[in-house]
Amino acid sequence: MLDAYRSAWTDVAAHLRDSASIAILPFGALEQHGPHLPLGTDTATAAEVARRLAERLDAVLLPPIHYGDTWNNAGYPGTLSLSPTTVTAIAVDLGRALADSGASVFVVVNGDWGNRNPLAAAMRTLTMEGRIRAIALDYPGMDAAIERVRESRGAAPGLNHADEAETSLMLAIDPDAVHTDRFAPSYPVFPSDFGTRPMQLHPFSESGVFGDPTTATAAKGEAILAATVEASLAVLADLTSP
Amino acid sequence: MLDAYRSAWTDVAAHLRDSASIAILPFGALEQHGPHLPLGTDTATAAEVARRLAERLDAVLLPPIHYGDTWNNAGYPGTLSLSPTTVTAIAVDLGRALADSGASVFVVVNGDWGNRNPLAAAMRTLTMEGRIRAIALDYPGMDAAIERVRESRGAAPGLNHADEAETSLMLAIDPDAVHTDRFAPSYPVFPSDFGTRPMQLHPFSESGVFGDPTTATAAKGEAILAATVEASLAVLADLTSP
Amino acid sequence: MLDAYRSAWTDVAAHLRDSASIAILPFGALEQHGPHLPLGTDTATAAEVARRLAERLDAVLLPPIHYGDTWNNAGYPGTLSLSPTTVTAIAVDLGRALADSGASVFVVVNGDWGNRNPLAAAMRTLTMEGRIRAIALDYPGMDAAIERVRESRGAAPGLNHADEAETSLMLAIDPDAVHTDRFAPSYPVFPSDFGTRPMQLHPFSESGVFGDPTTATAAKGEAILAATVEASLAVLADLTSP
Amino acid sequence: MLDAYRSAWTDVAAHLRDSASIAILPFGALEQHGPHLPLGTDTATAAEVARRLAERLDAVLLPPIHYGDTWNNAGYPGTLSLSPTTVTAIAVDLGRALADSGASVFVVVNGDWGNRNPLAAAMRTLTMEGRIRAIALDYPGMDAAIERVRESRGAAPGLNHADEAETSLMLAIDPDAVHTDRFAPSYPVFPSDFGTRPMQLHPFSESGVFGDPTTATAAKGEAILAATVEASLAVLADLTSP
Amino acid sequence: MLDAYRSAWTDVAAHLRDSASIAILPFGALEQHGPHLPLGTDTATAAEVARRLAERLDAVLLPPIHYGDTWNNAGYPGTLSLSPTTVTAIAVDLGRALADSGASVFVVVNGDWGNRNPLAAAMRTLTMEGRIRAIALDYPGMDAAIERVRESRGAAPGLNHADEAETSLMLAIDPDAVHTDRFAPSYPVFPSDFGTRPMQLHPFSESGVFGDPTTATAAKGEAILAATVEASLAVLADLTSP
Amino acid sequence: MLDAYRSAWTDVAAHLRDSASIAILPFGALEQHGPHLPLGTDTATAAEVARRLAERLDAVLLPPIHYGDTWNNAGYPGTLSLSPTTVTAIAVDLGRALADSGASVFVVVNGDWGNRNPLAAAMRTLTMEGRIRAIALDYPGMDAAIERVRESRGAAPGLNHADEAETSLMLAIDPDAVHTDRFAPSYPVFPSDFGTRPMQLHPFSESGVFGDPTTATAAKGEAILAATVEASLAVLADLTSP
Repeated sequence: MLDAYRSAWTDVAAHLRDSASIAILPFGALEQHGPHLPLGTDTATAAEVARRLAERLDAVLLPPIHYGDTWNNAGYPGTLSLSPTTVTAIAVDLGRALADSGASVFVVVNGDWGNRNPLAAAMRTLTMEGRIRAIALDYPGMDAAIERVRESRGAAPGLNHADEAETSLMLAIDPDAVHTDRFAPSYPVFPSDFGTRPMQLHPFSESGVFGDPTTATAAKGEAILAATVEASLAVLADLTSP
Repeated sequence: MLDAYRSAWTDVAAHLRDSASIAILPFGALEQHGPHLPLGTDTATAAEVARRLAERLDAVLLPPIHYGDTWNNAGYPGTLSLSPTTVTAIAVDLGRALADSGASVFVVVNGDWGNRNPLAAAMRTLTMEGRIRAIALDYPGMDAAIERVRESRGAAPGLNHADEAETSLMLAIDPDAVHTDRFAPSYPVFPSDFGTRPMQLHPFSESGVFGDPTTATAAKGEAILAATVEASLAVLADLTSP
Repeated sequence: MLDAYRSAWTDVAAHLRDSASIAILPFGALEQHGPHLPLGTDTATAAEVARRLAERLDAVLLPPIHYGDTWNNAGYPGTLSLSPTTVTAIAVDLGRALADSGASVFVVVNGDWGNRNPLAAAMRTLTMEGRIRAIALDYPGMDAAIERVRESRGAAPGLNHADEAETSLMLAIDPDAVHTDRFAPSYPVFPSDFGTRPMQLHPFSESGVFGDPTTATAAKGEAILAATVEASLAVLADLTSP
Repeated sequence: MLDAYRSAWTDVAAHLRDSASIAILPFGALEQHGPHLPLGTDTATAAEVARRLAERLDAVLLPPIHYGDTWNNAGYPGTLSLSPTTVTAIAVDLGRALADSGASVFVVVNGDWGNRNPLAAAMRTLTMEGRIRAIALDYPGMDAAIERVRESRGAAPGLNHADEAETSLMLAIDPDAVHTDRFAPSYPVFPSDFGTRPMQLHPFSESGVFGDPTTATAAKGEAILAATVEASLAVLADLTSP
Repeated sequence: MLDAYRSAWTDVAAHLRDSASIAILPFGALEQHGPHLPLGTDTATAAEVARRLAERLDAVLLPPIHYGDTWNNAGYPGTLSLSPTTVTAIAVDLGRALADSGASVFVVVNGDWGNRNPLAAAMRTLTMEGRIRAIALDYPGMDAAIERVRESRGAAPGLNHADEAETSLMLAIDPDAVHTDRFAPSYPVFPSDFGTRPMQLHPFSESGVFGDPTTATAAKGEAILAATVEASLAVLADLTSP
Repeated sequence: MLDAYRSAWTDVAAHLRDSASIAILPFGALEQHGPHLPLGTDTATAAEVARRLAERLDAVLLPPIHYGDTWNNAGYPGTLSLSPTTVTAIAVDLGRALADSGASVFVVVNGDWGNRNPLAAAMRTLTMEGRIRAIALDYPGMDAAIERVRESRGAAPGLNHADEAETSLMLAIDPDAVHTDRFAPSYPVFPSDFGTRPMQLHPFSESGVFGDPTTATAAKGEAILAATVEASLAVLADLTSP
């Protein structure tokens, strides 16, 4: 495993010369996660999953993208959202540059819901160009792992935001950045088409919490991380075999 | 000073509510800096200058952009270049999001030569929109400071790359990431139009060094950093006065 | 209910003058569906669902878009795919024109998997502009209905293509266009990352069938249609209430 | 002749395998045509001409585009206009997909004045790419045929809108969609630069009629259709010869 | 009349302050016109018509655009064609800048066939924005004037290129730039779809002449110019009346 | 040397057939230069330098671009600014067309400060495409020459606008277009960040003068021109050697 940020180009070049060379990019967001979690929650989580994958796959770990498409949360000041076309452009540019540098596989570990569509568009462009095998992982296995450890109910199907799950993850990754004294559940009421069309979240929750952080623990976070890494490796099995 | 990456949105929102609120973004690059300096050299330097400015101005420090337009060095594997339109889009998106979040001043600390034109384009767009006062600093005062401490000659006018100056900066910022055992000067011969038209650098230097790192010291790096911060504050004087 | 294609503008204008006026657009595709189903299968299905919704909601029914983003099936000649940006542009243009015409709600009935992301992008643009309430329905309730009637197993999770389900739908909608003498099941073997990254389908099935059409019946198709319409109405309940 | 919409991909693929294979696309519009003609008038007319050409040339008939650039009539509610770049994108995408599918000739039968420039742009792009012979027909021979049958005078040179000519066409193609009880002539007064610069039509005619529909007959419509088809075949003679 | 190129901004600003202020832009091309006419023929002709109109309308005459969309002739070296989007962008930018400067009417005198569509697109954008009255004149009255003076036959309907008409114009405007010793007629044979789809001209004529220059005279050129100016003034009558 | 504007394509084609063929384009602007200099000052100066270079290099001289990116001066009516993307597009289109025409070297003589970044972007695109050697000259040697002849002080570092230097240039190039009776110095006060971020100039000077024109002479202008031409030739030495 090689941390590109603190490595010289000659060392990275030597590592990428291998025919099964893999580069892993954490793609996060600067997004509100309630009064108790930091704005960098999505980036920190993606960076942790990416680091573990890089170790397991002996890959080049790239420095993270700290911003993503977080339009849903843009009504909370401090959230800084990129437009979807910018997210796509970043991933396409880096994928092409990796191909130029000799990498064979480009794995994006995506930590932000809003990045899913724009990253899918980028992966398709790179796939059509055919110069590098590219995949964006949207935390495979994480939802199932959350269901296994969860004690509180979710705010809505598929919506884990500053709740038990995300708070557990941050307690496992960077506990000093968690304001445990600010934990407070919030269960908004949603309209009939919630989840089926674009909708910003700030009209539904003043605090930005969707669910209940009070039952979060670092152990639950570690369990979710470990399961996500294993499921990611299973998905990557064929793509990363030389 | 507030580190946005590890702060909750509620704290950042409160800080930005101030009428002279300032947000500072380090914009770096993942770019070759010879066999002795890490790929993240430009980002690390910009992040250090940004951190010092944030402290002096009581500003919100944003997490860095780790990639930039480094087409000039794209011939060295491991360099991952964004296209100029992507650099512009990132800065425009973040400037708009900061205006939405209530910030008054957006300072980009640019650490990469290739980002200059695309960031200038972004600043103009933000200035024309008129919602936030925006400036991209290209290290004011740094060239003069380098001239004051320099013992080796430069490779070409305006070209400091993996040389005495940049190596001194990294010795001051992150000495463990510097391979002092790999120091080796390189003084290429350039054509008559070097510096006046777009040209990639890899045909001129095999190692990626342009100048002489052997005379670098952490003290010189600290002197360059300090002078750059002071000159930056002088430039910002009118923009950041409420 | 008003069929815009065969109505005069004066009649449509009068209908849209109502404050809860709804316009419904079927968005299909010209895409391979095996040797036994027509290229227009997705459009025909979306048009049928849209027609039923228009009757239930007394809406203006718009003529269908016959083409969509079908890159996944573009390896089968006769499939004619639009690029995702074109799909987005069509939906945005029509949403704006409907707002200009006085419509309050724009419902897109999407019949093609590949249209999902580009239509979501269009809906977000229209939502951000705030001139019309816009939603793209991706057949809510259909997967559950298929599970209820299905006798054969699916080819892969979430993949219903020219199989029992789609064949049943066409037997209910346009039986004369179904070549019942060409029914033949096909169950390809997929790699570990199937469904998680962009992948074209023609390397996996020569016929273009993914599943088993032999157990299809018109009654199953009618059951799927009816359930989809009811679930769609449930989703639309809040959006279409004046 | 093969109707792609209701044909299986295997049948279309076999038909296109021929070296002189021709695909014909009717490109219409959803545009006001006075209180007596339907919004789909342009599409219906283009579809009829395209169908006749497909029969004469043994071509693949593609399902129609129901929307076009109708900015001129966008002031009449119910008219839903695409932007010109969208019209161009649709035609370019379909031309490329046809080339991928093995077609040799792509004939667009254009039924809407506003599509002329954007379709010309698309044909040029396809021609420059050189992968398919592409042509957009703007009803060759139709103006001359109209002059031969016309009893009423035109509203302005080159302007036939919901008048004797277009009403005759619809009486021939789909008489049930014509409100014969709403026939009323309208002869607006135009400024000196009418026809030489972009101008919307609604300030000039409240009803949307430009000319006189009262003298329309199905026989005149049939004569116009027949002449247009023959003139189109004459234009296509060299392009479609193997 | 004011020649903007050699006037100070204060004089132009004073002239544009008038409520009926008119600015006139000649839009030409650098395009082959056979071995006997200069590449600047289209620009020179447009500039002459524009100058006469500026005098008659007491308008601000803008310096010409020397390049246009001349894809049709790009097979002849020396022809330098702009893409259509560039032509559109130039006209839109200048129209907006004129509106900012206080002009009321923007008249483009177009001298190149290939500019017609892209300039029409620009005029529509400016018209939709509604900040300036904008028109692109495609030499109204010129075809009729040519028919009146012509002695040789044309090469094809609507095609006057380096023939009697264009040569007469240059003999009237800049006789020293005409190589009278190189006059040679050329009458290519065209396919059945000539004029109906995009086609480059160099396969049809080695010299680039389409017609017969030998019957050209300066007097004919002057007659064509005078008629074009009068017809242009007639078109502009309503647009330029205060 | 060949003046393309008044030459036939056959003559230009013959000239460009040479393997070291050079084409030179003056890129100017229509920009305020105070009440005493014409709007065309930048174009006239670039055209003069280009003409001298064309003679020295036996190059093809192209007709000038009369408009540029002059956003800085857009607050003065009569200034007509192109957007930066338009400037880039023009230069890229012409560079490609020159490559198609057989030219080996494309030299842009840039006369306008605002064109620097967009022309650099164009040169990089052309360089990456690799079909023509392209360079944009920003008056090499001119600043040094100005310092040698200057008697008045400059308004700000790097800012020569309608001052002694530019007025001297126009007295040398086109003295009849200079209003010597309107000479009046102007020395605005600038903020601390002047020159480091985008800023329009009209708030700082009512007349548009930045510096002192009263000490201008034609002899100084001639000295500046001659020095700029020599320095340009030195830069071009390697690029134009066969």
